[in-house]
Amino acid sequence: MSLPAFDEDTRGKLAHCSTATLTTQLFKRGLRNTFIQGVRRLTSKGGNLVAPAFTLRNIPAREDLDHVGVFENPEHPQRKAIETVPPGCVLVVDCRQDSRAASGGDILLTRLRVRGVAGMVTDGGLRDAANIAQMDFPVYCAGPSAPLNLAIHHAVDLNVPIACGRVAVYPGDILVGDADGVVVIPRHLAVEVANDAAAQELMEEFIIGEIRAGRPLPGTYPPNAETKARFETWKKSRT
Amino acid sequence: MSLPAFDEDTRGKLAHCSTATLTTQLFKRGLRNTFIQGVRRLTSKGGNLVAPAFTLRNIPAREDLDHVGVFENPEHPQRKAIETVPPGCVLVVDCRQDSRAASGGDILLTRLRVRGVAGMVTDGGLRDAANIAQMDFPVYCAGPSAPLNLAIHHAVDLNVPIACGRVAVYPGDILVGDADGVVVIPRHLAVEVANDAAAQELMEEFIIGEIRAGRPLPGTYPPNAETKARFETWKKSRT
Amino acid sequence: MSLPAFDEDTRGKLAHCSTATLTTQLFKRGLRNTFIQGVRRLTSKGGNLVAPAFTLRNIPAREDLDHVGVFENPEHPQRKAIETVPPGCVLVVDCRQDSRAASGGDILLTRLRVRGVAGMVTDGGLRDAANIAQMDFPVYCAGPSAPLNLAIHHAVDLNVPIACGRVAVYPGDILVGDADGVVVIPRHLAVEVANDAAAQELMEEFIIGEIRAGRPLPGTYPPNAETKARFETWKKSRT
Amino acid sequence: MSLPAFDEDTRGKLAHCSTATLTTQLFKRGLRNTFIQGVRRLTSKGGNLVAPAFTLRNIPAREDLDHVGVFENPEHPQRKAIETVPPGCVLVVDCRQDSRAASGGDILLTRLRVRGVAGMVTDGGLRDAANIAQMDFPVYCAGPSAPLNLAIHHAVDLNVPIACGRVAVYPGDILVGDADGVVVIPRHLAVEVANDAAAQELMEEFIIGEIRAGRPLPGTYPPNAETKARFETWKKSRT
Amino acid sequence: MSLPAFDEDTRGKLAHCSTATLTTQLFKRGLRNTFIQGVRRLTSKGGNLVAPAFTLRNIPAREDLDHVGVFENPEHPQRKAIETVPPGCVLVVDCRQDSRAASGGDILLTRLRVRGVAGMVTDGGLRDAANIAQMDFPVYCAGPSAPLNLAIHHAVDLNVPIACGRVAVYPGDILVGDADGVVVIPRHLAVEVANDAAAQELMEEFIIGEIRAGRPLPGTYPPNAETKARFETWKKSRT
Amino acid sequence: MSLPAFDEDTRGKLAHCSTATLTTQLFKRGLRNTFIQGVRRLTSKGGNLVAPAFTLRNIPAREDLDHVGVFENPEHPQRKAIETVPPGCVLVVDCRQDSRAASGGDILLTRLRVRGVAGMVTDGGLRDAANIAQMDFPVYCAGPSAPLNLAIHHAVDLNVPIACGRVAVYPGDILVGDADGVVVIPRHLAVEVANDAAAQELMEEFIIGEIRAGRPLPGTYPPNAETKARFETWKKSRT
Repeated sequence: MSLPAFDEDTRGKLAHCSTATLTTQLFKRGLRNTFIQGVRRLTSKGGNLVAPAFTLRNIPAREDLDHVGVFENPEHPQRKAIETVPPGCVLVVDCRQDSRAASGGDILLTRLRVRGVAGMVTDGGLRDAANIAQMDFPVYCAGPSAPLNLAIHHAVDLNVPIACGRVAVYPGDILVGDADGVVVIPRHLAVEVANDAAAQELMEEFIIGEIRAGRPLPGTYPPNAETKARFETWKKSRT
Repeated sequence: MSLPAFDEDTRGKLAHCSTATLTTQLFKRGLRNTFIQGVRRLTSKGGNLVAPAFTLRNIPAREDLDHVGVFENPEHPQRKAIETVPPGCVLVVDCRQDSRAASGGDILLTRLRVRGVAGMVTDGGLRDAANIAQMDFPVYCAGPSAPLNLAIHHAVDLNVPIACGRVAVYPGDILVGDADGVVVIPRHLAVEVANDAAAQELMEEFIIGEIRAGRPLPGTYPPNAETKARFETWKKSRT
Repeated sequence: MSLPAFDEDTRGKLAHCSTATLTTQLFKRGLRNTFIQGVRRLTSKGGNLVAPAFTLRNIPAREDLDHVGVFENPEHPQRKAIETVPPGCVLVVDCRQDSRAASGGDILLTRLRVRGVAGMVTDGGLRDAANIAQMDFPVYCAGPSAPLNLAIHHAVDLNVPIACGRVAVYPGDILVGDADGVVVIPRHLAVEVANDAAAQELMEEFIIGEIRAGRPLPGTYPPNAETKARFETWKKSRT
Repeated sequence: MSLPAFDEDTRGKLAHCSTATLTTQLFKRGLRNTFIQGVRRLTSKGGNLVAPAFTLRNIPAREDLDHVGVFENPEHPQRKAIETVPPGCVLVVDCRQDSRAASGGDILLTRLRVRGVAGMVTDGGLRDAANIAQMDFPVYCAGPSAPLNLAIHHAVDLNVPIACGRVAVYPGDILVGDADGVVVIPRHLAVEVANDAAAQELMEEFIIGEIRAGRPLPGTYPPNAETKARFETWKKSRT
Repeated sequence: MSLPAFDEDTRGKLAHCSTATLTTQLFKRGLRNTFIQGVRRLTSKGGNLVAPAFTLRNIPAREDLDHVGVFENPEHPQRKAIETVPPGCVLVVDCRQDSRAASGGDILLTRLRVRGVAGMVTDGGLRDAANIAQMDFPVYCAGPSAPLNLAIHHAVDLNVPIACGRVAVYPGDILVGDADGVVVIPRHLAVEVANDAAAQELMEEFIIGEIRAGRPLPGTYPPNAETKARFETWKKSRT
Repeated sequence: MSLPAFDEDTRGKLAHCSTATLTTQLFKRGLRNTFIQGVRRLTSKGGNLVAPAFTLRNIPAREDLDHVGVFENPEHPQRKAIETVPPGCVLVVDCRQDSRAASGGDILLTRLRVRGVAGMVTDGGLRDAANIAQMDFPVYCAGPSAPLNLAIHHAVDLNVPIACGRVAVYPGDILVGDADGVVVIPRHLAVEVANDAAAQELMEEFIIGEIRAGRPLPGTYPPNAETKARFETWKKSRT
């Protein structure tokens, strides 16, 4: 299936939108479950995440199948995922919200970074968290967790629809991440959501200035006709 | 991939083994996570479940994709699963342990029964639970739950490896269910586990008689040489 | 605020509808969170619950306020709720899904029964569960729990909007309960939902007969034009 | 430390008191956390549990220590517990509320029964649950669970203070169990609690008759002076 | 109901008491459940929180009632709460410990700050967490969460008794927050608790110096007569 | 029982090994559950934790036993633990993963530091968290929690095998902690694990350099013969 285009203009707009604004836009379109639950940003550098999803699915480990020898196989799905996710995309990993083991560590994350991948989101743990935290790269996980992935997870599929943090993620969906967390935008909605969110961000920039200046919520947030008129004047004045 | 044979002799032995005995046999082989967590038997009739697994995978629902119109499509994975699972197999459903909605109801379960399917195991809910409970059929679920599957689940894949109740289930694995719950036996171990479990069951039938007769645990459970000798005598006597 | 009428015809229709059917009707109207989570039927007699909600709200107990002396006051909200809920209504109790204590016992439930109240639904526990289980009365709770409500709960408000099992319950909403559990129907939707659900029940009665007779799901469930035609014939034939 | 006596009179009174009444008596004495959470009765026969506690403590299993060979040792704490708990006492097991494995099965429960032990309470699972359910014996657990205890639990100590279902249990404490569950009565309070609970039970037997006869809660429950007077009359009349 | 006075002297004392000390003082008075569970400080500036509670209650959202249009109404309870909480008070929000959505964002928090409100405590999430974290203001929440409150919460009541983080909060109760979290002091105890806590803080300041100097716990913590004598000397010396 | 020696050489090696590497070494030896779940580092200074375990066990509090007067007794197990844990050892506390109360505060932690104890690990809370966070000392806990330990915990045993964060901890086991968390190394494995982990760390230092330089995972991680040869060269070159 070919995906709708994801152009630079849309990427640029989304890079300046908060996940708060984006979840509101999706809520207005009837989508109430778009924010990945139970993950947090591990890195402070690298800016917001804006990238199409490439996915990896795990099921529970089984002792006879999941021994350290499996990594000798270069086709092992976890390792293949790292080598296969296209530059500019984000690797999104389904760990069934089980953070008792890592879904990666500093070596794998370094490889992703070197390959130009846009970031990583997992609802499992990550090991070597202090090293990863220094990387210039948006990385989100359930928290630090040292044990080897094989103790809990068996990587099984690449780039299929998955669950991540109780949200459906389809390959090619646009993920946006900031300090609050990560929102999943269905691919076909990315352009219209980006446009409307950018407009909402501008309006809220104006509104927060009004609130700081002492205006009350009624009439200001949401704006009434008078506030909207002042917004239009403000918008022109700042060009 | 062709699966190891699953013959009638093995099926017959497993039908007389408890999940307690089978999990012990798997534990002896290093497999500690084989018992599906959080499910219980819904039906009282139909005997023990012994059948190869045919799987269905769900991810979280998305409001724009999961509306009642989807069932017009005969290829919808949930409905297709019901029509496709081979007679004699068990349908095993991955609902991510989320029982806020049903993974089926009495119409779908009736169709499975008519088709000669061996049973159903889901780590989600089931609706029409009182009707299903009357069926002559092994059915296991997380509990009764009325809401339509589409409220929470999106069926996505047939017969891929899944998680069910925190256990890995591969297509073709042998599932055995009794009043305690359901154990997953990796397909390639089914014959040897069936043989050893049948022998263990016989020994434990003898031992429980000894215990009822007043023997203490030491020397009896596990049996020492003397008890083993008495077991051999008992075994012959009952032929 | 006066509530829309809740007539006998609607009550009668709902009494023959399953919660499965009703949650589907609500789902079709965009309401996805209408089934009270984490409660189960405690009584086997008394038929389905169909009644308008009268609510009681609890907050956490505080040791200095919640001592056994409080029941000397006939205005204590828990006791007042029991005496105030109108006959024909159901008492719905918000215990914040905390079942470490009882929200009632056999004396209070007996009083509700004597007063002609339609039933009780609580997302907390109930004590004297074996006695209550014998009553001819629909009662739903999170499970048996002996400790006095005052150990955990402080009754605070009568007949305000509450949460029960993660669902909003407004006074006057129509609650329907069967073996699967309890659905909350917003009052203004009761008539139309009852009508459509009754029609759906009839269709599903026909469909399950077809499925038992060997018809496959495609074309039958959901029904295509041909099946609908046979349904019309069947409907006439059974009058 | 020698324990206060636990005489037949006290035992007899407690056998006729509900856990609802007993938790109320303990609440009146400032003890709010006395009801074992998360366990339920597995057996229907055998009457109420009333017995002093003998305890067994488990910690998490470790693969190198917890293999099936350990049961060859008759001093293994789990097996020793079964052989050591005094007749008339109840075996109370701390499984850290982890029911992923069994803390016993039908052989061990049979041995307890043969030895005259009063019952078993565990906040873990039990295997062979259908067989145990037929025994004439009070047994409480978190639910059926087939896996061998060694998969999750390492038995470590006999008759030390433990946690069971989030409640402290000291050796010798009196456990009382009915259909609601199990209450832990500190040993030194057993006599006075039994006396006051027996009086409360009698009063509530009278009150429930009054409520059935149509009396309202105010003045009846709790009883005012007039109701108390009628109670005294009733009490005499029934002798 | 008029509240006991909350004077500047009490406020000043509480501003120098830790929540550790205050929960100990409440524990001594028999209050064991006074610390709001599951929340953490979001802001680093703004000092400790010491303020009377003004409350907002939420129940679960319902799709037909909770759409973005509701904010056009200036009487919407969430927005009205922001405009109504008195300067110097803290807004305390009951979100049923559900952090899947925000209970506010940077615009609302800015308005609270401008209005001179003392802070905010919610057991739900907050959006725009990075912006809020920069504010000079005590703010506590369950964690960052971007989705609009309407996705999960329906604001229903102002200034009624609520649950927040499993603790009862009555309007006017004094909330004190530091880096550990937030304690709820029943209004009528504020003065005596402040006095005793201030004395305890002074004693512990002395004790920690003694411990740093090498004194053992016995005799020092808690202090024996000799240590108390040294404390009196120290207290005089520091004036 | 005398413990295997824990020499300075082993300690030195472990001090440079990550918990990621150590859990992998234990996984290779069949130990899959060695990482303490649900705790995090509270202090930033003090380097990695490497120390033998000295344990303290808690059970749930009981109101009549756990009042502030108990600390008058210098033999109270919590206080005795602080005074008894040998310098160079780490105090490991079993709080049943219940963080509703503190298992210590700044006075007790200061005493541990003064006594030369190596650190503290608890699966409960800690109070005065901001003060403790400044200490030069490895401290791990479930999170800040102000309430007095006596509200939830009763200290009962010193230096017995315990559960901490779902992992078995035996007295004398070697605990190693870094930013990811804490791993428990069975004492008899400490030497061999330290040796193999040190070798693994060196290899991974080399590998991460290779990955940064652009090498792909296949052939590099895990290393093939050619990469191993380059590693040997690199190892010599850096001496």
